[in-house]
Amino acid sequence: MTASKQGGLADVIAGQTGISTVGKEGKGLSYRGYSIHDLARFASFEETAYLLLYGWLPTDEQLSQFQQQLADSRELPPSLARILELLPADTHPMDVLRTGFSALASYEPESENRPALDIAIRLIGITPSVLLYWHHYQQSGMRIDTRGKGGGIADHFLGLLHQKEPALQHIKALDVSLTLYAEHEFNASTFAARVTASTLSDFYSAITTGVGTLRGPLHGGANEAAMELIERYSDPEEAEAGVLEALQQKQLIMGFGHRVYSVSDPRSDVIKEWSLALSEQAGDRTLYDISERIEQVMLREKKLFPNLDFYSASAYFHMGIPTSLFTPVFVLSRLTGWSAHIMEQRARNRIIRPSADYVGPEPQVWLPLEER
Amino acid sequence: MTASKQGGLADVIAGQTGISTVGKEGKGLSYRGYSIHDLARFASFEETAYLLLYGWLPTDEQLSQFQQQLADSRELPPSLARILELLPADTHPMDVLRTGFSALASYEPESENRPALDIAIRLIGITPSVLLYWHHYQQSGMRIDTRGKGGGIADHFLGLLHQKEPALQHIKALDVSLTLYAEHEFNASTFAARVTASTLSDFYSAITTGVGTLRGPLHGGANEAAMELIERYSDPEEAEAGVLEALQQKQLIMGFGHRVYSVSDPRSDVIKEWSLALSEQAGDRTLYDISERIEQVMLREKKLFPNLDFYSASAYFHMGIPTSLFTPVFVLSRLTGWSAHIMEQRARNRIIRPSADYVGPEPQVWLPLEER
Ligand SMILES: CC(C)(COP(=O)(O)OP(=O)(O)OC[C@H]1O[C@@H](n2cnc3c(N)ncnc32)[C@H](O)[C@@H]1OP(=O)(O)O)[C@@H](O)C(=O)NCCC(=O)NCCS
Ligand SMILES: CC(C)(COP(=O)(O)OP(=O)(O)OC[C@H]1O[C@@H](n2cnc3c(N)ncnc32)[C@H](O)[C@@H]1OP(=O)(O)O)[C@@H](O)C(=O)NCCC(=O)NCCS
Repeated sequence: MTASKQGGLADVIAGQTGISTVGKEGKGLSYRGYSIHDLARFASFEETAYLLLYGWLPTDEQLSQFQQQLADSRELPPSLARILELLPADTHPMDVLRTGFSALASYEPESENRPALDIAIRLIGITPSVLLYWHHYQQSGMRIDTRGKGGGIADHFLGLLHQKEPALQHIKALDVSLTLYAEHEFNASTFAARVTASTLSDFYSAITTGVGTLRGPLHGGANEAAMELIERYSDPEEAEAGVLEALQQKQLIMGFGHRVYSVSDPRSDVIKEWSLALSEQAGDRTLYDISERIEQVMLREKKLFPNLDFYSASAYFHMGIPTSLFTPVFVLSRLTGWSAHIMEQRARNRIIRPSADYVGPEPQVWLPLEER
Repeated sequence: MTASKQGGLADVIAGQTGISTVGKEGKGLSYRGYSIHDLARFASFEETAYLLLYGWLPTDEQLSQFQQQLADSRELPPSLARILELLPADTHPMDVLRTGFSALASYEPESENRPALDIAIRLIGITPSVLLYWHHYQQSGMRIDTRGKGGGIADHFLGLLHQKEPALQHIKALDVSLTLYAEHEFNASTFAARVTASTLSDFYSAITTGVGTLRGPLHGGANEAAMELIERYSDPEEAEAGVLEALQQKQLIMGFGHRVYSVSDPRSDVIKEWSLALSEQAGDRTLYDISERIEQVMLREKKLFPNLDFYSASAYFHMGIPTSLFTPVFVLSRLTGWSAHIMEQRARNRIIRPSADYVGPEPQVWLPLEER
């Protein structure tokens, strides 16, 4: 019996994976052997999703078919649309996705005729619909046509959100961001989804676990928390003073640090470039300059580097994505990684059931109610 | 870095707990120091639930107040009732609970004014309502009054299910079963709920993870699978032949074996006695005799003993609980253990994020679409 001495399974290898490798020498990331830098530069998110789900890069024909399947997955079952209308406007958008995915299992349960891979594609395709049908209905009473205008996932998402043709640069930036967020080994939400899958539960249950786990501010919720941080300040000086004070109070600065990376997060440089490009296009570098200053302060004071979530915040802001939808965008992307891991877990399954070190009371003698 | 060599974290202590101790010398179970045998014999499920949630056995006054809170938690928000009506009759009842709990977060989100403990009590109180409102509505179109007739949880559950006063012996047997199912250390669903909680996600997310993870046949779903097994045979001889054949085909016999227990499951003897009592009261020992024969065969052939799920099947059958509701009854009980663990995780949190052993492809050179 080996104990996780530092807690949080920080020192434990929980199993094998062939999906991504992360953190060799404290940096780096590849999906199925392809470096994240190549993927972010050359591949569309759809190609990346295919690579994660199937294990290889698609041919032209495979990619077209996959894109068609995704586009065909955009319609909401009418009952699901009714359910979304019953979730009030102040619902946490991650709760909307969790409930939406959970309910979809009622209409399209996993079965021999609807295997895991089909559900994975359906979920990726339907995520913008679930989120943005709810969003527009609760914001303005509008029942949007979730089929949208076609196009890739990033295009479709921004189109549904803004109800108009998105700027090309925004589409490209979101597409890259989706690639960066797609997969990250045994991160908490993926690992939790694998625990769920390990009891041989159904696909939707494992995905619902993923959504609920990603929601926390120490994980996917960090991109929203990073936005709340950077928009608190009006210039870099104010940001520096604020962050120094927060550090003195031993507060966590969201969007910094990582369990596995010790030197840098290879995804951060990529999204940082995009954040800069979108800021300059918008003619407003305020958030970018604030972010950069916070990066410098964190390096100087704590030797901590930004993770993917940090510059994603300002990039998403410039795409006009409301802060409360940042983590749901992460879901749209990470569905690919979760799905690949659920299938991998099933292929060589053993129930994930660790032990605990008991630190509770010694054996107690029973005391009847009257004598307490 | 230590690796879980056997897989499934079977050899790993993932953290500390003071809630229950399980499997010292491969047997035994206590909640907060009280032996499961004393609790099953002397405590009501409500007392056990209080013990798990608060850490001590309630006084008379504390217990009354707790019972009142539970009884006050039985009404469905009207929108949640509408959602349940939208989940078709062939929905898996565990999916109904997963969706129902997930949706409740929209109406009663966690907040400073609605802390974890209040949500835990609300969820225990509302579970029979969510499940049985849906059940009756989809079976017969009836919209039941979920407040029921008062009484304890077991009484209330059976009353709502059968829409008549339950037999006293059935109430007592279900009450004991709820105590037995309440808590079991770092079992898969509880551990998964702790992973979700470790990202500082909300209470409902962690509970939804628990439900989805319990659903699998290697975990909570085993009680339903055990029922399907025993009702396949008409007498012990047929059962013996059938199980021998299944074992030859290397099939798992559901309701046997355990990750932690190596000698016996201390809960099995208790529920077995109740299964016998209810069978004799019903004047039909068929399922009991079949179960006992399977127990003998499994011991002789595989040195495997029944776990709690095995005799729970015949006991629930005699209470008139439909097989598809067996695992949801497990939820009603295990909500107490999950809730205690989520609160314990939060009290000394570190994100649960293990590492993986990479066994995938070597670094790949990028190949443009045209060249694949
Ligand atoms: C990502 C994270 C959860 C990793 O957790 P972990 O591996 O358990 O890291 P630890 O909590 O052990 O961190 C080591 C030290 O760095 C400090 N630290 C880590 N991240 C920090 C942050 N973002 N801000 C300030 N201090 C931080 C910790 O307080 C700890 O200090 P101590 O040794 O004085 O207690 C953690 O860095 C964090 O909470 N970051 C902020 C949330 C975030 O951005 N999450 C997204 C991750 S992709
Ligand atoms: C509970 C359970 C998941 C524990 O899993 P585990 O600790 O990983 O156990 P293992 O799979 O390593 O079992 C060890 C051996 O016993 C066998 N075994 C375990 N449970 C068995 C069962 N119920 N029927 C037949 N064989 C069983 C395994 O096949 C394995 O044999 P092998 O060494 O020849 O491969 C497992 O016993 C099981 O699947 N039981 C049936 C489902 C069930 O009742 N679950 C409820 C648990 S409370």
